[in-house]
Amino acid sequence: MTATTTTPAATPAQVATLDRVDSWWRAANYLAAGQIYLRDNPLLRRPLRPSDIKARLLGHWGTVPGITLTHAHLTRAVMATGRRVLMVTGPGHGAAALTAAAWLEGTYSEHHPEVGQDLAGLTALFRQFSAPGGVPSHASPHVPGSIHEGGELGYSLAHATGAALDNPGLVVACVIGDGEAETGPLATSWHATRFLNPATDGAVLPVLHLNGYKIANPTLFGRMRPEELRAVLSGFGWRPVEVGGHDPAEVHRAYADAVDDCLADLADLAEHPDQRPRPALVLRTPKGWTGPSLVDGERVEGTWRAHQVPLARVREDPQHLAQLEAWLRSYRPEELFDDDGAPIPLVGCWRPRDELRISANPLAHGGIGTDLRRPDPVEHAVAVPTPGTGTAEATRVLGGYLREAMALNAEHHNLLYFSPDEHASNRLDAVFEVTGRRWTLPTHPDDEHLSPTGRVLEVLSEHLCQGWLEGYLLTGRHGLLSTYEAFAHVVDSMVAQHAKWLHTAAAVSWRRPVPSLNYLLTSHVWRQDHNGASHQDPGFVDHVLSKRPEVTRVYLPPDANTLLAVVDHCLGTRGLVNVVVAGKQPGLQYLDADSAAEHCAQGLGVWRWASTDTDGDTDVVLACAGDVPTQEALAAVDVLTDLVPDLRVRFVNVVDLARLARPGRHPHGIPDATYAEIFTDKPVVFAFHGYPWLVHQLTYDRPRHDDLHVHGFHDRGTTTTPFDMCVLNEIDRYHLALAALERVPRLGDRIGHLRQRLLDKLAEQHAHTLRTGEDLPEISGWRWSR
Amino acid sequence: MTATTTTPAATPAQVATLDRVDSWWRAANYLAAGQIYLRDNPLLRRPLRPSDIKARLLGHWGTVPGITLTHAHLTRAVMATGRRVLMVTGPGHGAAALTAAAWLEGTYSEHHPEVGQDLAGLTALFRQFSAPGGVPSHASPHVPGSIHEGGELGYSLAHATGAALDNPGLVVACVIGDGEAETGPLATSWHATRFLNPATDGAVLPVLHLNGYKIANPTLFGRMRPEELRAVLSGFGWRPVEVGGHDPAEVHRAYADAVDDCLADLADLAEHPDQRPRPALVLRTPKGWTGPSLVDGERVEGTWRAHQVPLARVREDPQHLAQLEAWLRSYRPEELFDDDGAPIPLVGCWRPRDELRISANPLAHGGIGTDLRRPDPVEHAVAVPTPGTGTAEATRVLGGYLREAMALNAEHHNLLYFSPDEHASNRLDAVFEVTGRRWTLPTHPDDEHLSPTGRVLEVLSEHLCQGWLEGYLLTGRHGLLSTYEAFAHVVDSMVAQHAKWLHTAAAVSWRRPVPSLNYLLTSHVWRQDHNGASHQDPGFVDHVLSKRPEVTRVYLPPDANTLLAVVDHCLGTRGLVNVVVAGKQPGLQYLDADSAAEHCAQGLGVWRWASTDTDGDTDVVLACAGDVPTQEALAAVDVLTDLVPDLRVRFVNVVDLARLARPGRHPHGIPDATYAEIFTDKPVVFAFHGYPWLVHQLTYDRPRHDDLHVHGFHDRGTTTTPFDMCVLNEIDRYHLALAALERVPRLGDRIGHLRQRLLDKLAEQHAHTLRTGEDLPEISGWRWSR
Repeated sequence: MTATTTTPAATPAQVATLDRVDSWWRAANYLAAGQIYLRDNPLLRRPLRPSDIKARLLGHWGTVPGITLTHAHLTRAVMATGRRVLMVTGPGHGAAALTAAAWLEGTYSEHHPEVGQDLAGLTALFRQFSAPGGVPSHASPHVPGSIHEGGELGYSLAHATGAALDNPGLVVACVIGDGEAETGPLATSWHATRFLNPATDGAVLPVLHLNGYKIANPTLFGRMRPEELRAVLSGFGWRPVEVGGHDPAEVHRAYADAVDDCLADLADLAEHPDQRPRPALVLRTPKGWTGPSLVDGERVEGTWRAHQVPLARVREDPQHLAQLEAWLRSYRPEELFDDDGAPIPLVGCWRPRDELRISANPLAHGGIGTDLRRPDPVEHAVAVPTPGTGTAEATRVLGGYLREAMALNAEHHNLLYFSPDEHASNRLDAVFEVTGRRWTLPTHPDDEHLSPTGRVLEVLSEHLCQGWLEGYLLTGRHGLLSTYEAFAHVVDSMVAQHAKWLHTAAAVSWRRPVPSLNYLLTSHVWRQDHNGASHQDPGFVDHVLSKRPEVTRVYLPPDANTLLAVVDHCLGTRGLVNVVVAGKQPGLQYLDADSAAEHCAQGLGVWRWASTDTDGDTDVVLACAGDVPTQEALAAVDVLTDLVPDLRVRFVNVVDLARLARPGRHPHGIPDATYAEIFTDKPVVFAFHGYPWLVHQLTYDRPRHDDLHVHGFHDRGTTTTPFDMCVLNEIDRYHLALAALERVPRLGDRIGHLRQRLLDKLAEQHAHTLRTGEDLPEISGWRWSR
Repeated sequence: MTATTTTPAATPAQVATLDRVDSWWRAANYLAAGQIYLRDNPLLRRPLRPSDIKARLLGHWGTVPGITLTHAHLTRAVMATGRRVLMVTGPGHGAAALTAAAWLEGTYSEHHPEVGQDLAGLTALFRQFSAPGGVPSHASPHVPGSIHEGGELGYSLAHATGAALDNPGLVVACVIGDGEAETGPLATSWHATRFLNPATDGAVLPVLHLNGYKIANPTLFGRMRPEELRAVLSGFGWRPVEVGGHDPAEVHRAYADAVDDCLADLADLAEHPDQRPRPALVLRTPKGWTGPSLVDGERVEGTWRAHQVPLARVREDPQHLAQLEAWLRSYRPEELFDDDGAPIPLVGCWRPRDELRISANPLAHGGIGTDLRRPDPVEHAVAVPTPGTGTAEATRVLGGYLREAMALNAEHHNLLYFSPDEHASNRLDAVFEVTGRRWTLPTHPDDEHLSPTGRVLEVLSEHLCQGWLEGYLLTGRHGLLSTYEAFAHVVDSMVAQHAKWLHTAAAVSWRRPVPSLNYLLTSHVWRQDHNGASHQDPGFVDHVLSKRPEVTRVYLPPDANTLLAVVDHCLGTRGLVNVVVAGKQPGLQYLDADSAAEHCAQGLGVWRWASTDTDGDTDVVLACAGDVPTQEALAAVDVLTDLVPDLRVRFVNVVDLARLARPGRHPHGIPDATYAEIFTDKPVVFAFHGYPWLVHQLTYDRPRHDDLHVHGFHDRGTTTTPFDMCVLNEIDRYHLALAALERVPRLGDRIGHLRQRLLDKLAEQHAHTLRTGEDLPEISGWRWSR
């Protein structure tokens, strides 16, 4: 392999600069290898002994040299140009490289004073890595300058794109491993060129690092013909700038020129925005470059064997120990670190000032963005003079609020909405009165609301919507993702990683809490009238609630005004994953703006106007969560009161699902005493939007849990009417009424007769809706309409 | 737009053939539009009246004409060449087109006699579509010839690739919508060229259909410059063959030539395999082509407005009704259907014979593959003379079984293993003694086990592994996907769709049950010693068990021989999603081959050798599921017996998780009486591999559920020792012993002292393992080793 970019002879100043780049790179590589191997003797001031070596050798050497090289060359460019650079590092387990870089830049010690720039700090740096109670081998939130964990692969380029949005002048350099590049989310992330506006956004500079191997296999991008790779990138709107080789001096020269070329191009593009391809670096260097070439007679450098720990038996095998020592000394640490263990000035002072250091970019630590200005939800509320009589489309009402939120924050450029091509079909299109859909490709006369500065990002990829939003939030801005409930599962693994990041980051004092990740799940399980089973899955909330309770919230507003209250609350929070589930179809409205605000603040409560009990005389409790279950539970009260006029039913609605848990299990949990006040000591029939076991999961350790009877979705779905969906899953008004009646002992023998009447009504109504295909049957609203 | 492929003047025979293509196409389009609109007057034998129109208009017209066109032209080519073609249809909600095609080919009526080729059948065909109790608007299992639902988008090309594997001679034509093409999974699916071997596999012929719009937006692939699209495809190893236009006659001519070109190329490639690009069709036709051009003054054909129902108010608006009638009559149904409602011979007899009809391909209906030959797991078992003394790596032992399974079935070419680059790291590498990793790109001397005919498919994309395996299974072959437990969430939405397909397909009599989708989840939550929180998530099994119990199974074998028994069982099943969770690290072995087989057949049971009770004198039950929890629960017995020698502990191990449910909730559930025999009427402390609430979810309606105390993963994870992970989540031996002791009333006042002794031991052991970084502490095995 040789450098594929040839350049004219360097000037003496260039040579001196590249010497410093190389010194810094050697220091970073030394520190990364040290993290994998050493527990003592950090600067090899004496010959290496087995006792200097860690008991367990863990870490990933293979990806390190490419990351450190890129960091070094970006740093050089920052010093030369003053450009702000954020670095997103995609290759798996690259933390040793990033930590080394941050330590050299001084940032690591500023944030982690126990890991200072001295011998004790070096020892701590080495020992903490991949050790119990220490830091992981991928970039968790402890790493300054990083917004990207790189544990699960595939999201680096989407994160980088999100970080670049609304950050003009910023360059987000995104190192992409050729392993990661095989994932689906990364593969479609190359479309970023069509969404980033050079005039109003920052730039993403991909660095596709082809070291050729994954854990055990060659990579596809590493082995396809170079012209094929060029074709892929250029087809996606990039201009590949290729650098490669194995001679450090040659690669330094070529890489410096390539980075300069890219940054100059990006600077020009920002000043003269057009549709020309954006530069993308393609870096071909050996896997585990500068590490052991041969181990036990087998090639390691440049092969898959360099993926993790190139020398595995260093404590046991003197030959391996000697090879490690030779490897480490090849970086000439004695030239790089002073007697105290600090980097010599040539290395340690070779860095941009303050926040221009890549590891000190404040955008990576929660950002510098302002809080969101939120409209008054009351001004967007629907009038509800009487509960349960008028109808509205909840998401359409929310659209008005979101439109004003967008307008209120227009000057700050700190709010974006994301959707997989569903913003209008989810009835949030009021937003298009104040902004458009982001689109930079050619337009046709029949297109609607397309704009190169549009603040609604739509693309048919939940992965991209999620990844972009995460990158936007992690750099301190605000957003909302609306999507079909069932297809939120597409990003299950992404939200899990984000929740884990938030939970870990919350314990890192120098990270500012980032605005919450807000989901609006609509087009939900109960209203898939023609889509059928494939669109029926309410389980995303189960998945989210399996993550740490400190960072997860689920809301099920039953109508438009509660949806407004909940979304308004969520947009004001930081550090959370908020999931809001609300339908887009016309539905009954129950609470006026004030009642909605109060009910949502409580999170759950008795609806007196829908109840027929007074304190102490309750026969049975009907509880519900979700819009369709609330409607059916209210209809069940209607049915019950019609059937047994003296029945005492208490009606409870739950908006904030975690209220159901005990306080020790979720911060939103209510004490047992409050729970008992609300749910009484009588049987509870609970109509739940999702899988019934989620309610059991939240309440299994509550007193009287054995008398809680949850009706919910049992994965019985098909193409049918809304009412039939309820009947199939026994969450319709008649099944609920039946479940309630059967738990009222004082009805005695009457129950047989009552059951039959209910079943007759069910059969009649069921047949009617199947015949007419109509929506949920109306509720008479006999009592609360008075 | 004009046809982009120019051709010489057609011969009279070609003209006649294309006339038939056009007639068939018009008939299919008519039938598709009829499904969306008509409830009566199916052939317009009288003027259209509002009462002929469905009450609710549902469906997706926009994608129909491209699908029917492709079906027509493939059919023409099949008749000309005799090639077997399987069609995978990716665009969302294309069922109306596929159902129309199958009805014209006679297949629909053969399988659904109530939908015959007559007026009554036509009426039934129209009425069932997107109607209560009918069929969905996307291709559910009721559609003959289809293996792909197209509800959730993104998996068509992966499914097509899986179907083509090991099917030499087959052409899998895969229609890809330009909306779907934006998804991540589809984006990386273009790599199929690197895995399909022209000599031993069938061919995938992508048909990228650019109709330009999604629901509301233009598509990226539709608007990027044509040379960019060509670059993307050619970079991925395809040769784009482009056809486009809006004049049917021109497009027919060009499309026929293009399809002939592709099929000839594929035939040549199969005979003379080389690395040249594979043909891929790119079809540019207007969205909703041949539908209404203008509606209410706005352009519909060729725009996003044609996505669903182009004329929305047909019952209410006479103008819309007239426009619909004109549209439908434009296909000239009177020329296409006879008096009885059957297609005229020119249309109805224009089809290949029998199983060459695209809608009759037996590969789509469960395949024609043979059952799997399974090795005898006993021959691969590890010797376990005494429980809990020796160790083995469970997945390495399984590797031997999988090697033999591969060898046994070599001649049938009906078994493949899939993994995201982890087959060897998951210690299944014995398989490489009999086969290689599939690789068709150039190789280097340091590569290992690469082969163009390798039967292990590795790519760093869980989506591709899953999609390929699904396509392979759905066409009747067998396979296993091994992956990191945490990252199985990447395919949450895919497994949900597959489970729904299996459940629906089970009720379709003419579909042969397909081999089960088998997962081996390894590298699990308890053994992420250096990966930390990002790799710790046991929730995939929760997600799978949220799907219909008829089709979902979860197994947690505690050691190597139980793993063998479970995997052997799973490989012999059909119609299921089987999830097996087993670690790859060295672990204690408990059951010899016979005991393992018996225990796995029972699914759960008392381990007498680990218990200290006899019937009737139990103090407390220690139950467990999963390898690490089993080891810690056994160690807890050890600790308890040491501390309170006369304590009577019953030890229960659960392998088949669904056994815990009542029979009414899961087919593997055991009756309450059996449950009570096993778990007694004493407190149960349960050490569970995953989230504790999954056990509660399965058991909440069991008697005495309030005395079941589950310890499991609480999302408390980091980079640490295996033992510390257990301690963090209170599933270690000491916390389990403490939980057990505290529920034994007869210990009385002694409990305070005992608790302190346990906590002291815990602190001591905990400090020791943190200091040494060692694995799970040993078990003394005091009793069962005798």
